[in-house]
Parts: sequence; structure tokens; C-alpha cells
Amino acid sequence: MKRIAVLTTGGDAPGMNPAIRSVVRYGVNKGLEVFGVFRGWWGLINEELKLFNHRSVSGIIHEGGTILKTTRCSEFYTDEGQDRAYQTVKKHSIDGLVVIGGNGSFRAADIFHNKYNIPCIGIAASIDNDINGIGTTIGSDTAINTALCAIDNIRDTATSMERIFVVEVMGRESGFIALKVAIASGCEDVIIPERKFNLEATCHNIINGNLRGKISWMIVVAEGAGGAVDIAKQITEMTTLETRAVVLGHIQRGGRPTAFSRILALILGQAAVDCLLNGKTDKVVGMNAGKMVEVDFKVAIQKKQLDVDGLYNLIKVLT
Amino acid sequence: MKRIAVLTTGGDAPGMNPAIRSVVRYGVNKGLEVFGVFRGWWGLINEELKLFNHRSVSGIIHEGGTILKTTRCSEFYTDEGQDRAYQTVKKHSIDGLVVIGGNGSFRAADIFHNKYNIPCIGIAASIDNDINGIGTTIGSDTAINTALCAIDNIRDTATSMERIFVVEVMGRESGFIALKVAIASGCEDVIIPERKFNLEATCHNIINGNLRGKISWMIVVAEGAGGAVDIAKQITEMTTLETRAVVLGHIQRGGRPTAFSRILALILGQAAVDCLLNGKTDKVVGMNAGKMVEVDFKVAIQKKQLDVDGLYNLIKVLT
Amino acid sequence: MKRIAVLTTGGDAPGMNPAIRSVVRYGVNKGLEVFGVFRGWWGLINEELKLFNHRSVSGIIHEGGTILKTTRCSEFYTDEGQDRAYQTVKKHSIDGLVVIGGNGSFRAADIFHNKYNIPCIGIAASIDNDINGIGTTIGSDTAINTALCAIDNIRDTATSMERIFVVEVMGRESGFIALKVAIASGCEDVIIPERKFNLEATCHNIINGNLRGKISWMIVVAEGAGGAVDIAKQITEMTTLETRAVVLGHIQRGGRPTAFSRILALILGQAAVDCLLNGKTDKVVGMNAGKMVEVDFKVAIQKKQLDVDGLYNLIKVLT
Amino acid sequence: MKRIAVLTTGGDAPGMNPAIRSVVRYGVNKGLEVFGVFRGWWGLINEELKLFNHRSVSGIIHEGGTILKTTRCSEFYTDEGQDRAYQTVKKHSIDGLVVIGGNGSFRAADIFHNKYNIPCIGIAASIDNDINGIGTTIGSDTAINTALCAIDNIRDTATSMERIFVVEVMGRESGFIALKVAIASGCEDVIIPERKFNLEATCHNIINGNLRGKISWMIVVAEGAGGAVDIAKQITEMTTLETRAVVLGHIQRGGRPTAFSRILALILGQAAVDCLLNGKTDKVVGMNAGKMVEVDFKVAIQKKQLDVDGLYNLIKVLT
Repeated sequence: MKRIAVLTTGGDAPGMNPAIRSVVRYGVNKGLEVFGVFRGWWGLINEELKLFNHRSVSGIIHEGGTILKTTRCSEFYTDEGQDRAYQTVKKHSIDGLVVIGGNGSFRAADIFHNKYNIPCIGIAASIDNDINGIGTTIGSDTAINTALCAIDNIRDTATSMERIFVVEVMGRESGFIALKVAIASGCEDVIIPERKFNLEATCHNIINGNLRGKISWMIVVAEGAGGAVDIAKQITEMTTLETRAVVLGHIQRGGRPTAFSRILALILGQAAVDCLLNGKTDKVVGMNAGKMVEVDFKVAIQKKQLDVDGLYNLIKVLT
Repeated sequence: MKRIAVLTTGGDAPGMNPAIRSVVRYGVNKGLEVFGVFRGWWGLINEELKLFNHRSVSGIIHEGGTILKTTRCSEFYTDEGQDRAYQTVKKHSIDGLVVIGGNGSFRAADIFHNKYNIPCIGIAASIDNDINGIGTTIGSDTAINTALCAIDNIRDTATSMERIFVVEVMGRESGFIALKVAIASGCEDVIIPERKFNLEATCHNIINGNLRGKISWMIVVAEGAGGAVDIAKQITEMTTLETRAVVLGHIQRGGRPTAFSRILALILGQAAVDCLLNGKTDKVVGMNAGKMVEVDFKVAIQKKQLDVDGLYNLIKVLT
Repeated sequence: MKRIAVLTTGGDAPGMNPAIRSVVRYGVNKGLEVFGVFRGWWGLINEELKLFNHRSVSGIIHEGGTILKTTRCSEFYTDEGQDRAYQTVKKHSIDGLVVIGGNGSFRAADIFHNKYNIPCIGIAASIDNDINGIGTTIGSDTAINTALCAIDNIRDTATSMERIFVVEVMGRESGFIALKVAIASGCEDVIIPERKFNLEATCHNIINGNLRGKISWMIVVAEGAGGAVDIAKQITEMTTLETRAVVLGHIQRGGRPTAFSRILALILGQAAVDCLLNGKTDKVVGMNAGKMVEVDFKVAIQKKQLDVDGLYNLIKVLT
Repeated sequence: MKRIAVLTTGGDAPGMNPAIRSVVRYGVNKGLEVFGVFRGWWGLINEELKLFNHRSVSGIIHEGGTILKTTRCSEFYTDEGQDRAYQTVKKHSIDGLVVIGGNGSFRAADIFHNKYNIPCIGIAASIDNDINGIGTTIGSDTAINTALCAIDNIRDTATSMERIFVVEVMGRESGFIALKVAIASGCEDVIIPERKFNLEATCHNIINGNLRGKISWMIVVAEGAGGAVDIAKQITEMTTLETRAVVLGHIQRGGRPTAFSRILALILGQAAVDCLLNGKTDKVVGMNAGKMVEVDFKVAIQKKQLDVDGLYNLIKVLT
């Protein structure tokens, strides 16, 4: 193992930059040559890569996004695309890949390794925290804090104007972000894909609360559980109370990574390089319950079961 | 003038709380008794008010929203509503009102003063900065910084994924917020009600830029100039490039007021009380070009002409 | 167990308010009457307490500090003080105490329980994260992010003016905060009580780096490992290069709690009430490696051994 | 005028980067060639400069500090230094300089222009806002908001622990920052160089307040009016109440520029280039009461008289 390459693929997540920094600097420190590949798999296919050194990753530790850029590259899913990516790897004598991304990234890395026998190690970076077997992904702590801060702002208006708000947060199929920000912001209710939701019961509560003088109401909804705009409309219809929808959208993807997201990224960068040096492949490195874990690609890409009971029930009690 | 009352009406704006603090404490310092009226005109109509003292406004200077709460009260626009409001004023021997709000608030205050001869002074608080004759309203600096911060976040993804983003900001009929955040965030273009916009020319630029390698593109649109979702759709159709819409929405209304919004609020609170003490009425107090001004209600509620040329042209040059 | 009381003692930490919220609302939900005691043990000694309800803890989840206020109360360490505190407990038929605080708080609670047999459960809240047996205390994630944000700011000047900075962070006897912010901010070096530090070697590195053109340098020092002012002076003397000291100080204690600090606080509030309901006493509830733990007061107050090797070595590699 | 150069000198200020961006892009747009000079006058002396283009200033609008770096360069104050700087200017056929900085920068530019007849235009960038004739400098709005945010944090502890805090803010000889953050944060008192301060009267107020139950107290002190540590010590002695000092220090210099600082910087960059194109020299461009002004170097570097009465008296009334 003398030369490795690092790429970021799929949706960007805050903390990808410190992860790149760690792979490059730790790799160089271990005597490796480290390439930075631009735009994920696209960069391998189109031979857009560069030998990085210590200075290549200076001043990026606190920046959101990824200096390597990232794409969702459909060309990779063709034989020709994969062959061209492999030609780049061979041409530059790259012995191993560190792939920073989410489920789609690891699925692709799995294909690539199986076909060309190039060792691939994944680093779980995704605001949605939906990688099976991994407790916390790079970026999710940041996204949660960004969404929380936005909801704190909205609550100022909700309280001052005594309105009902439905706030939609990111998370794809997962209610992870929604659950966290709902409890942390003191929201009155949360709608997540993991749990059936009884909108009529909620409207009943709203009407009853309204009669007792409780007029502002905040509901967080995961994007995978329905659109905020639709839900707000239904609540207006059922309660005749003015209800506003806010879709937080892409502000949740960017911004400076939190301390947690940065430190996790730095540790996992080191772990990924160590895996390659130890002859491992087809693993995602991550943290689970405070411990380092290595999860097979095939396991990591399966649907993650989110244990929602604790927080979900606590929300109901605390509001 | 022995007793005055302060109310907040219309949409909330960050800085209303320091304005309340200033009216109450400066008023008390001048020997007045100061009532806080809850929920704007509704509170006068329904006799929801309270004698405030120095401590009533402790610990609120840095809080968004308004501790007095605010409503848009249709009942006030009936004779009965107005009479009931006046009964409250008479019953509590209130000699003057400080009305913190926007255009609708001053229109109502104008009616109230004309009918019952109760002196009314307005304080311009509105994130939209759309009060005629007033340079800067309380809250607009905060809203601009909140929107700017959100766009900084979005740019991380726009740059990393090389996407086109259309970001809709608040401002009602005014392009004020849009213009400010567009230039401050280094956006590629801005769409405001004050200027015709040629979407085809922009799409042409995007396509040309794309050929030269410039792939990320950020366009800010004022809510009064069209919906971000529609515009994004049109751009996708015209350019065949993936374009995302983000509607920043109510996050722009809340949050801790900036230093500028707080200090403006504190100064205007003092000025409003001084106006009442000096026997004035039917004026909005505000700042214009660094100087205190007093603008007649009838002037303040006219459509404000925004001078957009300087910033609009500079945006075109700097992108 | 029908009536419980909650108090905050020792240094304040961001997240104490959501912890109070959780104890009160979860307790009420379980059928308990919950008293809020003001100013920690002082409030028991001076009978300053109040029956709280659901509304008493509204609108505090996002606020730093503690609405119950907190003191370091020397009077409690006298027989008379303890007796008076017990009189208050007896008079109000309080069956159990939830004590939110740090080491000193649990030492006091241990004394109180041993002497009067009143069940006491502790919740670990301390920015220093120095409670033995507890992985993460309420407030430490917030303090780390606040310090990190401050250091991000300082780095702008360090880079622009090419200066050496020594930044002192809080943490008492522990290098926990220092280690976290040093790695997360990409600092060049860190000085913590847990490790000997060779200032001469560092100065040697600085001089060598300087010759290679690396002129800005950032060193984080834990307050327990020496003063930033002294260290900066020594570096100036050894290297003849201008070196600045910044002591971050009390900004690290305050501010809105992060999502992590809030959620941890809410969960631990529930856990503490459950402990009391289950007849437990003399335990600190906390999280360790993602799992709930209950640690005896006597264990919790012992000196916590911080495992610094992983992060400390990684800092050396990544800079 | 075909070629110009831009440099940043003196202390860095948030907004220098957007100012550079504006000078470069607006200059290029006007058909000029624009050099970026590194490390201020040092870069002219040592011929460290580079021809910039549109892309050279991409992605910097939201960054604190200055990509051109800055030094306080004593060598410039020698004949030899000045001659070498002039050689660089001549060698690269530079027809004019834009100097972004503060008083020292304009004094140097004045010398340079007088000696070699190279047109020099200054842009006022300084967190201290101490440029005579200029209402607001680039960076001061950002520094005020950073200090304010820090004081908001400290107040959480001041309130929770009921302590007295003395917080020292930057501002050199000027009480500008101190005055703004004191009023905006709701501080109890402020100590500035422009006004005599009676510490005994304040201690008297503290003791009296203490007797009435007001225990927390926050005093902002300008660095030019005495050290926070000393003042805190004196208060402790006079009142016997525990008093803490916090020196905010260099966190105030860095961080992302606010919308106001960015927009001001962008406008002034344009104005500076226009001045050079119009054959002007020895002027500082700036804003005063919402209007563009051009102030002679000789006037700009005189001691600025700060009109403190309005805010100073209002602070006394509102606390």
C-alpha cells in the first residue's frame, strides 16, 4: 500500500473537509502518497485527481461542504464508466480508496472492489444518519444543530403571534433529525416515518389546548413522513386555525461543522487509512456507542432500524 | 401626560422587545405610568393590559419576538371594536399610545387618534423595511443577517455539488432584503419587484457559464417578485440543469436581534416617549441617514420607493 | 414518593434549564408534586422554594444558565445549615431531591442523604466533564462548541497577521475541553494537565516552522495546565516572535445549549425522577458510551481519569 | 490609470476580504489590471504581489481576516524601505494604490504619495471605528455583534450565579465598541475614555442594589479606559462582593463579516477604484450618515471626536 486516493460522493455533509484533512495528513504521516479525486466517481472516470500534500488541506477544517466536490454520477453505473475509473486507478498506481459518503457511495464502492479488487474503505458522512451499524455519521450533529437553531427562531414568531407551525426537516427515509430537533426544541409534536401518526388526535389536542389558552403549537415533520405544506393545510381545515408551513431545506446541509462532527471526521479519517494499511477492504468505519466499529459494506447499506421509542415517548410526556 | 400604554401589532420583528424595554423604562424614568397591552389592538378591545414597572422588562433585551405578543386584529376595523378599545383607554386614564409595528399598525393608530383624539406615536418595526420616510426599521438588520447566514450555508452545497439554487427571501412588496442579502452573499443574480427581470438572459448566462466551467449559481428572489419554486422549475426547463428552490420563510422573522436592531429600538423607544411628552401625535419615529426623523402617519403608510440602482448594478459587476 | 424538589448547585452549565424542565414535567406526569428550589442549597436553608407546574418551565429549553439560579453555599457545610435545610424538606414533606450540578453538589448531597436519610439523585451538569464514571456531562458539548467558535475567530487574525496565539480554555483540573477544541480547531499544539509539556520543543518547532514560512501558530492550553499569559511570555522570550494570549473565560459557560446538551438534559431529568420513584438514592445518572448509567456519589466525586492518548497523538499527527 | 494594486495593512478587520473582492472585480470590469500585494507595505518592499483576476477573489466574501495578509511593517518607515516599495511599484507599472486599513495605513500612504507621487486611495477598515470623518468603518459592526454575543453568554452566568462581571472590549483609544455593546446588552454601566468614571459611585449603586435584591451586575469597559482585571479587583475591595473580569480579546477581530460590514466593503471597494479613475488621491472613502464621503488623509488620521452623550445618558436611564 503506497498510494491511496480519497473521494467524496453523494450528498455533501458538514465534516467532509476535516475527514479529507485527516486522510491526507495521516496518510502522508504514514508514508503514503495521497491523491484527492474531484467530484467523486466522476473524477476517477475523467481522471480529475491531484497528488495532495500537507498544505493541500490547510484551512479547511472548519468549512462546510467538500473541497473535493461531489456528484451523484450515473455514468459509474455503466460498465464503461467503471472501466474508465479503473484505468485511472491503475494508471496512477493507486492501491486503495477512501470513499467518504453515504449508502449510495458504499454500494458503488462495493461494486468497484468486487470487480477490480481494489481495496475500498468507506467513511460514513451523511446528515441523515442512515448508515446501518453506525451510531453517528459525520454531519448529522451539525445538521441537527442547524435545524434546531432555525426552529428556535421560528418559535419566536409562533409564540409572539400565537400561531401553529409545521416545520419540515431533512432526513430522507429516516426520522432521526426530526426526532432529535423535535425534542431539543420543545416541539409539541413530531411526525416521523417510523411511527403512524394520528393527525386527527393532534388536531383534537390543538383545539382543546386552544380552549385552555395554549395557542402556539409547533410540529416537526420528517421529509420522509409527508410534506409540511400538506399537513399544515389539513390542520387548518380540521381546526380552522391559521397554520403555517416552513420547509427548512438545504440550509441543513451546509455550515461550519460542529466540534462533534469535526472530531468524528478526524478520527474516522485516521481509522480509514489504518484499515487500508492493515489490508482491510469493503468496510465502513464509524462510531457506535462511543466505540470504533467496522461494518461490511453489505451490512451498512441495509435499511437502518432507528430505535425511536425512548425519545418519541419522552416528547409526548414533556410537551 | 401621566399614563401611557405600549403595544406591538402586525408581524413580529426582532428588536420589538428592546423597544418595549426602552418605552417602559424611559417612561417610568420621566415619571409616567406605563401600561403594557397584550396582543396589540385586541388587548385594548378586550382590556388585556397591565401596569409595567422597571422589572417587567428585565431580561428581554436580547430576545426575538415580543413579550406583549401581537395579532392582526380584524375586530379593530369595526366601530364596535374601536369603541371598546377606547373604553379601555378611558377607563385606565391612558393619555397616549406608543404603537410598535408596521404600516397596518400606523393606519390603525391614525384611525384611532382621529376618532378619539388620543395621541398616538408609532415606532417602525418591520423586517421588510417598508415604512416610507424611514431609512431603517427595527428588525431589518437582523432579518438580513439571518437570511445571509442561511445563504452562506446553502452556498456550501451549491459549491460542493455544483448546483443552481434559487433562494426566496421575505420582504412582501419590497426587494430590500433580497437586494442586501444578494450582494452580501455574493449571489450571481437577484430578482426584485422594483426591476424587470429577464429570466431568459439569466438562463443564457448560466448555460454560457456552464460551458466555461462555472457550474454553481445562486439566485436570490424577493417573495414579492415570484416564487422560488416556479422560477427554479423554469430554469430547469430552459437550461436542462438541475435547479433547487429554497424558501427561507419564517426563520427570518425570529432570533436574537443584532446590535443594530437593539440599539435602534432603544433609541426609538426614548424618542417615542419624548414625542408624547412634547404633545406630538400621529408621527412615526425612526432613523434616516443616521438622523432621527418624525414622519406623519399618512406619509409613512404610503408606498416606499426603494432606490435600488446602486446595489443592483453593483451586483451585476461583482458576480 | 409524592413530593420531590429540584435544585441546581455549583457552577452553571448550559442545559441545566432543559434538565429542570424534564424533572418538573416528567415528575408531574408521574403524579408527583415538584418544588423548584432557588439558589441551590441556600434555597433549602432559607426556605426559598416554590411548587412548580407544567407552565413554570415553559420557554426555557433553549436558555443558558439556570432559572433556579445557583450558588456555592458555604453555610451548607455547617451543622446548622444542614439542619435548616432539613427543616425545609420536612416542613414541605419533600420525599426526594434531584440535585443538578457537579462534584461539589454530589458531595453535599451525599452528606445530606447520610445525615437525614432523604433520597438524593444527582444529574451531572458541568462544562468541565469531570464527573467520574460519566461519559459526557450536560453542558460540555456546548462549552466545547463555544470555545471552538471563538478559536475559529482568533484563527482569522492568526492567519492574517501571521501571529502566534496561546488560547486558554476552561476545564479546571481536566484537559477535556482543551483536547477537544484543540483537535477540532486544527490547533498546532495543546497543553493539558494530563500530559507533560515540553515548551522548549514547541518553541523549537515554531522557529523551524518559521524558517519554512509557517508563521501563524495556535496553541490551546487548559486552565489547569498553566496560564496563557505566562506561556505566551515564555514563547516570546524563547523565540523572539510576537505571541498573544487570549483567555476565553466565562463566555464558555453561557449561551444556548446545543442539541446534544439539551437532549442529554431531557433524558437525564427523566432518569433521575425514575430513580427516585424506584427507591434509589445516592446515584448520579448519566450517559456513558451511549448508555444510561447510575454511578454512586462516592464514585462520581473521585478524580476522573481522562484517556487522552487517542486525541493527543492524533493532534500531533494532523498539525 | 491602467494598473492598480490593492493591499491590506495594520490590524485585520472582518470585511477586508469583500473589500478586496470589490476592488479586484470592479477594477477588472473597468478595464484595469489589478495586483494583490501580500502583507501590506512589506509586500511592496519585498515584491510579493500577484496579478489577480475575477477568480482570485472567489469564495472569500464571507471570510474574516484578509487573504492578502497584513503586517505592521516598521521597515516602511525608513528611506530604504520606501524606495524599495517604490521600485516595485515602478517595475510593475502600477499607477495607483488602494490601501485598506486604519490610521497607520493612511499615514503611511500619505508619506508614500507625497514622496513618489503615486495616487493612493484609502478604504477605512478597522474594528475600532476611529477614523476621523468616517461614520462607520468596515468591520466595526461585526466586532460589535461578536462582543455582544459574548456578553449575552456571560450574562447567563451573571444572572444564574448573581455575580458582578467587568467585561473588557477592544477599541484602543475609543469607547465606540464599549458604548454600543453596553447599551445593546443591557449592561448596568460602561467605562469609556471619553468620560470620567466614578468607581465609588458605581460601587455605591452596587451595594444599594444588592440590598434591594439586585445581585448580578455587568459593567463594560473599553480597553482604553482601564483594565478589567484591575477594575474588578477594586470593586471587590470596595463592595466585598465577588467580581469577575473577562477580557474578550482577539475573538472580536475575527469571524464572518456581518451583512453591514460586507455591503459597506463592497461599496467602498467600488468607490476607491472610481476615485483612482477620476484622478483623485490622498483620500479615504467611507460612509457618513448614509452618504459616501471622501476624507483627506490628513483629516482622517486626526483624533476622532466621538459624540457619546446620547448613548451614554440613555444607558444610565435604561438600567
